[in-house]
Amino acid sequence: MQTNRQWLIAARPEGLVKESDFQWRESPAPSPGEGEVLVRSVYLSLDPTNRVWMNEAESYLPALAIGDVMRGVAIGVVEESRDSSFSQGDIVQGLLGWQQYSAAPGAALIKLPKGLPVPMTAFFGLLGHIGLTAYFGLLDICQPKAGETLVVSTAAGAVGSLVGQIGKIKGCHVVGLTGSDEKCAWLQELGFDAAINYKTENVTEGFERHCPQGIDVYFDNVGGDILEAVLNLINLRARISVCGMISQYNSDRPAPGPRNLANLISKRARMEGFLCTDYSNRGQEAFTEMIGWLMQGKLKYRMDVVDGLENAPRALKKLFDGSNSGKLIVQVGAE
Amino acid sequence: MQTNRQWLIAARPEGLVKESDFQWRESPAPSPGEGEVLVRSVYLSLDPTNRVWMNEAESYLPALAIGDVMRGVAIGVVEESRDSSFSQGDIVQGLLGWQQYSAAPGAALIKLPKGLPVPMTAFFGLLGHIGLTAYFGLLDICQPKAGETLVVSTAAGAVGSLVGQIGKIKGCHVVGLTGSDEKCAWLQELGFDAAINYKTENVTEGFERHCPQGIDVYFDNVGGDILEAVLNLINLRARISVCGMISQYNSDRPAPGPRNLANLISKRARMEGFLCTDYSNRGQEAFTEMIGWLMQGKLKYRMDVVDGLENAPRALKKLFDGSNSGKLIVQVGAE
Repeated sequence: MQTNRQWLIAARPEGLVKESDFQWRESPAPSPGEGEVLVRSVYLSLDPTNRVWMNEAESYLPALAIGDVMRGVAIGVVEESRDSSFSQGDIVQGLLGWQQYSAAPGAALIKLPKGLPVPMTAFFGLLGHIGLTAYFGLLDICQPKAGETLVVSTAAGAVGSLVGQIGKIKGCHVVGLTGSDEKCAWLQELGFDAAINYKTENVTEGFERHCPQGIDVYFDNVGGDILEAVLNLINLRARISVCGMISQYNSDRPAPGPRNLANLISKRARMEGFLCTDYSNRGQEAFTEMIGWLMQGKLKYRMDVVDGLENAPRALKKLFDGSNSGKLIVQVGAE
Repeated sequence: MQTNRQWLIAARPEGLVKESDFQWRESPAPSPGEGEVLVRSVYLSLDPTNRVWMNEAESYLPALAIGDVMRGVAIGVVEESRDSSFSQGDIVQGLLGWQQYSAAPGAALIKLPKGLPVPMTAFFGLLGHIGLTAYFGLLDICQPKAGETLVVSTAAGAVGSLVGQIGKIKGCHVVGLTGSDEKCAWLQELGFDAAINYKTENVTEGFERHCPQGIDVYFDNVGGDILEAVLNLINLRARISVCGMISQYNSDRPAPGPRNLANLISKRARMEGFLCTDYSNRGQEAFTEMIGWLMQGKLKYRMDVVDGLENAPRALKKLFDGSNSGKLIVQVGAE
């Protein structure tokens, strides 16, 4: 019998997540019940939303209890199947959790295609929730038009960097916000028209310099003060895609919202929230187009792969101190 | 030559508007230039947005200067016309200002129909900006469906009381917020399912009691804490029509926004601002349907007519202390 290795939630994080909020457990790997599939995880995705899942309050998913295996999206290999839709050796994705082995109902798993000209990790990038989020959050929620000004926050992140590049493909003037000069330089490599280092520059002055025509579309991953600065410069009929509010995730009592929401009225502007899961059934449409752009060299992405499940809690912190670059993934085992 | 009587802006209000922020002036009535029309005002509309117009900052209209005639929408009678589209005796509406006589370009005036089965003041209610705001702000921005729960703030106000009644016509469960027990009783007369006195009741508890199915549509006239309370109870795909943020109008530095804007994400909800002027060219559609409802007894409204232009500053304050009931109008002269 295999040994399972797991991270449990040990405590509700206060403020920034700490390694002591997790507890390591080794126990026998589960046996799949009728209709279940035993999966050995290969890659675990780390995303800002993981922090929200650790809170006591229910979000868009039920709250986890202390002692539960930490929730996480992973890709793995089917080791044993008691669901006729899956066979040993299939590659699957699902909410497998922060653990090496999981027994999951077949209905909760997605079988991934084999033989595509992309690495398996692409299912956590372009061909997964990141791609869906960037593609539909920008194109469906905001409907950007050529010549419009698009601002993206956490622009060097997995989602933000795709959003900006898709904006360029659509003919927008694209301005990204990120937290280091190295990341600013990378955004310019990606074709962004300008990048603002929000840690060293005054964001409003940056917008005034780089968005001389105002802001038509804002892809918001952070909320807070940057949202307020954007609202001061929105154009008539601006659209704000509310993808994330990372500035709010690490505090027990989130900071107040922007003082200038009334600008939505005078500018007849719209803020709209969405989740990539809303677009699961339109994945083919997005993935086909993005693979095309990738092949044409119009899309680039970076992966930040951390080796070893034991490093997952430490790695998660990178999302909140800005030290990751590109999509953050933990390699749990061999492909 | 007639004497004109005018209210000028004497000072930028700090906090609540005061009578000393206005200055009375008497001077000769103007003579219309080529293309202009001399109008004698009969009714002046007072609306919360008037307060915004007194600020130094530009809003959706250019800022006024100290010493300018206070901006206001009025209805009046054409006394003399040098624009061939208008004749003496025509009834017109426009941004005529807080004054008895104005010489306005014909192009800036709307000629009102005569002989309708409604009083002239209805052009400030159902058949004017109030009607457009309520009708399109609810039906176009929020698309309410039968069985959904609609919450309206400043529900006993001119716009709010129409919004709630239109919601009932569309089959919604309608809950109104207002500031006195007398107004709550009036809302129940209008057919609202429940009314919450936000001055004496805990708003969240009120929502929990009266919106057991959560909130699908919120018609927001106030912003601030009530918006935060609503955001805690919104359902999936909720829609928030941002009509006004009266809680913010009287302060130099508006209060922070809601701490829970991130709920827009988990609920895939939308907040959208609008101005009734966006719907000017669809007025016929709204007015025809609303006159029908009025004739069927499905819509009621109250007018609060203050006599005399000299009382306009005092009357404006009523909008912010909650002492008006129904659409607030100043009668400037005889019909």
